[in-house]
Amino acid sequence: MDGTSDFRKKYEEYLNIVNNALDSSLATDDRPGAEIYNAMKYSLAAGGKRLRPVLSLAVCEMLGGSKNDILPFACAIEMIHTYSLIHDDLPAMDNDDYRRGVPSNHKVFGEAMAILAGDALLNKAFELIASHMRKKEGDLTACVKAMEVIASNAGAEGMIRGQTLDINSECCELSEDILEYMHRCKTGALINAAVLAGACIGGAAESEYEALAEYAANIGLAFQIKDDIMDVKGSTDQMGKPSGSDAISGKNTYATVYGLEQATRLLEGSVAAAVDALACFGDKAGFLRDIAFYIRDRNN
Amino acid sequence: MDGTSDFRKKYEEYLNIVNNALDSSLATDDRPGAEIYNAMKYSLAAGGKRLRPVLSLAVCEMLGGSKNDILPFACAIEMIHTYSLIHDDLPAMDNDDYRRGVPSNHKVFGEAMAILAGDALLNKAFELIASHMRKKEGDLTACVKAMEVIASNAGAEGMIRGQTLDINSECCELSEDILEYMHRCKTGALINAAVLAGACIGGAAESEYEALAEYAANIGLAFQIKDDIMDVKGSTDQMGKPSGSDAISGKNTYATVYGLEQATRLLEGSVAAAVDALACFGDKAGFLRDIAFYIRDRNN
Repeated sequence: MDGTSDFRKKYEEYLNIVNNALDSSLATDDRPGAEIYNAMKYSLAAGGKRLRPVLSLAVCEMLGGSKNDILPFACAIEMIHTYSLIHDDLPAMDNDDYRRGVPSNHKVFGEAMAILAGDALLNKAFELIASHMRKKEGDLTACVKAMEVIASNAGAEGMIRGQTLDINSECCELSEDILEYMHRCKTGALINAAVLAGACIGGAAESEYEALAEYAANIGLAFQIKDDIMDVKGSTDQMGKPSGSDAISGKNTYATVYGLEQATRLLEGSVAAAVDALACFGDKAGFLRDIAFYIRDRNN
Repeated sequence: MDGTSDFRKKYEEYLNIVNNALDSSLATDDRPGAEIYNAMKYSLAAGGKRLRPVLSLAVCEMLGGSKNDILPFACAIEMIHTYSLIHDDLPAMDNDDYRRGVPSNHKVFGEAMAILAGDALLNKAFELIASHMRKKEGDLTACVKAMEVIASNAGAEGMIRGQTLDINSECCELSEDILEYMHRCKTGALINAAVLAGACIGGAAESEYEALAEYAANIGLAFQIKDDIMDVKGSTDQMGKPSGSDAISGKNTYATVYGLEQATRLLEGSVAAAVDALACFGDKAGFLRDIAFYIRDRNN
């Protein structure tokens, strides 16, 4: 049996579940102003790998949790990821005209609508969670824990902290420590939220939760280092930006701070640590292990 | 006993509770990137009337609910209100250099930080709610209902819908129906959320909830009409913008669409309807009635 084709099949399965749920989460109405939904849907549909929600589903399922219970949280995380990309692309931020190979949100809908569409997606993430919790019967403890994990990782001490550092550090050199902190926040926090929301809803024991936190931290780091390496090497990066654009624009990346060779060693180290962290789950964690390799080996 | 000075005293009391809670809700740390908190605090502290959280507290208390139970929701609503003002002021939106008499957020911190500070305040609103719910013992039904009321009123079918209409209708004439719908969303939705969150946490019976929804809709409308009248009459409006600026900039306002005289009649009608809606609460609703008069009579 080919492990790789098995992985692809399973990933595709999760991807379809996520895409269908996202599609039906933004129901348009015909009242005035409904055009905000077009701007929200444009970026949400421009999809990509859906790594974060796939992680949530996989972790929850590995622990014996139900897909329907984790799905609203998984979609919420993808909405938060999408809003952050829309706002990141704005002229006042990274000023990117393209995202994942298509014109960025503000190039299609204008800056004002892009700001509002981002706001609306962040808000919708929590609408989705609220609506799920209202309908859910029984104990809400796991839901509340998952919501708190998502909110705290997405906010001023998580993802937004990383964006703040990124904005304020352009064209000045960062120490290795602060570079790592920035990326742990900017990319790592939401990957962390995805894995740990899955852990909450799946009902992880304390030791399992800690192992998954270790796994999440390491794949988050691996994800960012790989991005930086691809950016320098000249493949198209995850954003569909011209190659080398981050390095050229004076951004601090693993490749510019450490050099390619050392960055590659760091990547291998993070992937190995992520895989090690899964030891307590044995064979059940096969898919999560494969995700760590996939993050290392991907070309976009 | 002077009713007006009683009202002021009570309002001041609620205001202090809200301001103290807001102050302590944004705890800075000393890790890199903590400057995001400065930008968040700047606008949150630039305060104003705190009408929305005061409404939440007053409604909840009238129904016999506890201040501590409503406070996180009241603060969340004020954070959402504040983020919307920060984003509204951006050059791509209303392009306002001043807000409540002081330079707007992006004039002090730059556009990128203003976008992030807005995002962080919206996110923080739900962090606050999540953290409250995690600590709370017992049944979470009322909390979840309050959270859903807030999220749905703040989002693409509430406040953001109104902002979308506002942006897309500049310099084209709106019908009276669409003007009212725009304002019901843009200003009304968050006032609605404030009143109804108080109703949820206070444990309103269904008929009480409906009466409070009617009250909220009418004071929301009154608030906007009064703003528009002040804008034309040349008082400083709530935003501290030069008088007449909305009318001059081609925005659709009650005063430009209906004329001053008819707008004043509409204002009186909304205030009367708000007061009528409170009949079922008898004397207990004195403070809420006074808020309706305060909205009508205020000069800023």
